[in-house]
Amino acid sequence: MTITRELKIKNTLSGEKEIFKPITEGKIGMYVCGPTVYSYVHMGNVRTFTSFDVIYRYLCYLGYKVRYVRNITDVGHLVGDVDEGEDKIAQKARLEQLEPMEVVQKYTNDFHDVMLTMNNIPPSIEPTATGHILEQIEWVQQIIKEGLAYEVNGSVYFDVLKYNSEHPYGELSGRKIEDLLSNTRELDGQSDKRNPLDFAIWKKAEPQHIMRWNSPWGEGFPGWHLECSVMSTKYLGETFDIHGGGMDLKFPHHECEIAQAVACCGTKPVNYWMHTNMLTMNGVKMSKSAGNSFLPNELFAGDHELLEQPYSPMTVRFFFLMSHYSSQVDFSNEALQAAEKGLKKMTTAYELLQNMNAESFTGSGDSETAKRIQNSCEMCHVKMCDDFNTPEMVAAMFDLCSVINSIENKQIKITDLDAGTFELLNNTFSGFLLDVMGIKIESDANDEGNEEAVNILMEVRGLLRAEKNYALSDLIRDKMAEAGIEVKDGKG
Amino acid sequence: MTITRELKIKNTLSGEKEIFKPITEGKIGMYVCGPTVYSYVHMGNVRTFTSFDVIYRYLCYLGYKVRYVRNITDVGHLVGDVDEGEDKIAQKARLEQLEPMEVVQKYTNDFHDVMLTMNNIPPSIEPTATGHILEQIEWVQQIIKEGLAYEVNGSVYFDVLKYNSEHPYGELSGRKIEDLLSNTRELDGQSDKRNPLDFAIWKKAEPQHIMRWNSPWGEGFPGWHLECSVMSTKYLGETFDIHGGGMDLKFPHHECEIAQAVACCGTKPVNYWMHTNMLTMNGVKMSKSAGNSFLPNELFAGDHELLEQPYSPMTVRFFFLMSHYSSQVDFSNEALQAAEKGLKKMTTAYELLQNMNAESFTGSGDSETAKRIQNSCEMCHVKMCDDFNTPEMVAAMFDLCSVINSIENKQIKITDLDAGTFELLNNTFSGFLLDVMGIKIESDANDEGNEEAVNILMEVRGLLRAEKNYALSDLIRDKMAEAGIEVKDGKG
Repeated sequence: MTITRELKIKNTLSGEKEIFKPITEGKIGMYVCGPTVYSYVHMGNVRTFTSFDVIYRYLCYLGYKVRYVRNITDVGHLVGDVDEGEDKIAQKARLEQLEPMEVVQKYTNDFHDVMLTMNNIPPSIEPTATGHILEQIEWVQQIIKEGLAYEVNGSVYFDVLKYNSEHPYGELSGRKIEDLLSNTRELDGQSDKRNPLDFAIWKKAEPQHIMRWNSPWGEGFPGWHLECSVMSTKYLGETFDIHGGGMDLKFPHHECEIAQAVACCGTKPVNYWMHTNMLTMNGVKMSKSAGNSFLPNELFAGDHELLEQPYSPMTVRFFFLMSHYSSQVDFSNEALQAAEKGLKKMTTAYELLQNMNAESFTGSGDSETAKRIQNSCEMCHVKMCDDFNTPEMVAAMFDLCSVINSIENKQIKITDLDAGTFELLNNTFSGFLLDVMGIKIESDANDEGNEEAVNILMEVRGLLRAEKNYALSDLIRDKMAEAGIEVKDGKG
Repeated sequence: MTITRELKIKNTLSGEKEIFKPITEGKIGMYVCGPTVYSYVHMGNVRTFTSFDVIYRYLCYLGYKVRYVRNITDVGHLVGDVDEGEDKIAQKARLEQLEPMEVVQKYTNDFHDVMLTMNNIPPSIEPTATGHILEQIEWVQQIIKEGLAYEVNGSVYFDVLKYNSEHPYGELSGRKIEDLLSNTRELDGQSDKRNPLDFAIWKKAEPQHIMRWNSPWGEGFPGWHLECSVMSTKYLGETFDIHGGGMDLKFPHHECEIAQAVACCGTKPVNYWMHTNMLTMNGVKMSKSAGNSFLPNELFAGDHELLEQPYSPMTVRFFFLMSHYSSQVDFSNEALQAAEKGLKKMTTAYELLQNMNAESFTGSGDSETAKRIQNSCEMCHVKMCDDFNTPEMVAAMFDLCSVINSIENKQIKITDLDAGTFELLNNTFSGFLLDVMGIKIESDANDEGNEEAVNILMEVRGLLRAEKNYALSDLIRDKMAEAGIEVKDGKG
């Protein structure tokens, strides 16, 4: 399959919008840093994963075969009851001990539930850090062999200064090693590190540390930065196309990933780095400590003092799409309610579209209306190809909504456009709404069935009143009230 | 929490029903062999996992704190394109190669979907074989050190004859080593094994084998039997309470698990072994090759030539419960339809129960009716405590259904029992139906709303016909037909 559209991606590494060229024609390898599963997934993560879901969806829509890898960070830092001492912990029956993987399972399940609710497509591969301990140990061995890491007291540190003498450290985040050094406090002699900028790629497990594996340096666990290097390389190759994550991961996490990959494999790991931006609530950075953050399920249920009402998962999804992935998203009840209205406009237009028929259009493909439609459809693509500009794509989609409404209320006549242009409208609008934006139409079939039965009842009741058959019309009203079905009386 | 009821479990190891005694008071460690995720989960697996879900649910209902581990077997045997030769495979870009973990992800997602649909509770921990390669290598090393395994050409084999000279091999499946040996063909010199009964605990990866890890014996992958020993021990301890699986796993898989654990840890790994039985279709063993098997989703959709209609996930669940876990289950349309009716009886009784009020009962707790209820409630527990006898528990539940129906139609009067006995009925029936049997009540609120509106329409239509207002009654019929609502005309 040949991809005909030119896609531009703003590459954090260069700071420029670059024309995207995949390493292997027609295929894309994409890695996104996933959640740490030691607590409920927070809204910032949900926004990041939803952004990359839309990016993934659009890449597939363009015709690319995408291998999308999003990891689960499950190496935790849970410790046992220190008071009991090492021996007592060892003597405890296994079932009496806290098992980190039980915690991991609980929050992984929650994370998957939220992703499903948000209609995010599962990644092609969802590898876990604990599932790649052997590979991580091999990387540590190789980096030591390359002379860019050293072992002290059972831990292994990456030698940032030595690395920097050969390769620039700080390229991605635009930091200079001198500035970093001058902003770092002197080591107080308590640390095993040669230099405060060095970071652990393998850590010795203290006695109370529960998660531990044997290694050439004794029992320990891998440093956090290492897992993403190891898993992305394993499943996507030493250099792959796109690496994404929240902007808070740019430094040091992604900077360390680059250093590790260059040290171990001798190549830069990623061609295009992409970062999503932060969330604010009423203009203030959202955080647990500021008390202005809520969990996804609190948002969906409207169960938080900052929220005036529940907001459905699709409303939240649409709300995210109304900002560019690299912009801050400011939560507020006003903005969420606006998204709710916008989404309703989209889904209503979609439903109207289902009852229209291409063959009924008998006009010309050169008409003003036809050209307007062709232009807005093209804009959907143009905006997405411009670094996935979802808010401007949504604007083009709103124009298509207006067109659909105008067809419905006959302001646009069937002689105003041709069948081909209508087909284009239908395919583009449905494709972008469902496949690219990933909106799940939540019109409930039963609800509709019910609505129809109620509509018939209302109509019959009107006719009965017209016939002055009040006995029966009142009976209908009473029965409906009894069944809890709302009756809205017209005037008269 | 003290568990007051005595539970008996038929232990495959002894062939006897034994009184269950947990290793740690109030806690249970349970391991069940999970699916291999290289194809869609088959009905036999669904039956096994649903059986153990009910067992898990009842253990929790009794008050035990259960750590339930069910693994995912994701070490597959996918090979690359052999024609291309080792070098060409190595040269291929990573993204051009088949990636086993992509296959694994697809079928793991499918498996989780089916488990959710069947209302099976996710296990406490769901470890993967690929996630425990390091631990498996350590077991192989230890077994070699104990002198019970040997390396040949990069593979490591468990020495069954030597093991058998110290410990009985075949205990679980009741096989004798002499019989096993006489039923085995002589090795033809092509094999690295010393004896045909020996089994691989580590296998050398041939060039075309895609999944491979470094080990002290070169690149390879763990033998299948090893993963369950390693993961159950890691999360439940060297000896744990319950190990379950399908009866086809008894030999050699579980037999090998015992041998590995005894060889590596010096202890028998499991106190109670439990095995589920096979599925048949119209009396014939269900299998892909016999052409008489269907996938879960085919069963739910009625999409198979052997199926007369769709059967809902809860119907299938109830159908499984109507057999003991250790009995064969014979699928047939008759049996599934009987289960559908039985389930309907249960859920209808449950809904009736919701509208009854304990305080309205003014009789005595010594009445015949009260005693009947007390007895049937007790029977629910007695039967489940007798090796999880679900069909007899269901029989007691059907008696409670009859009681509820009799209360509803006033055959049992409010003076026939006391509030306390009604509470017992309510708690037991609801608890067993929802929490132990795991039935999800699928009464759709919208459906009910619709039904009511339709009922009112039908009533009004009858009245209109009585008034000889055929114009309006026919209009209702036509409108309903138009809306796709079924109209059933009475006589006349």
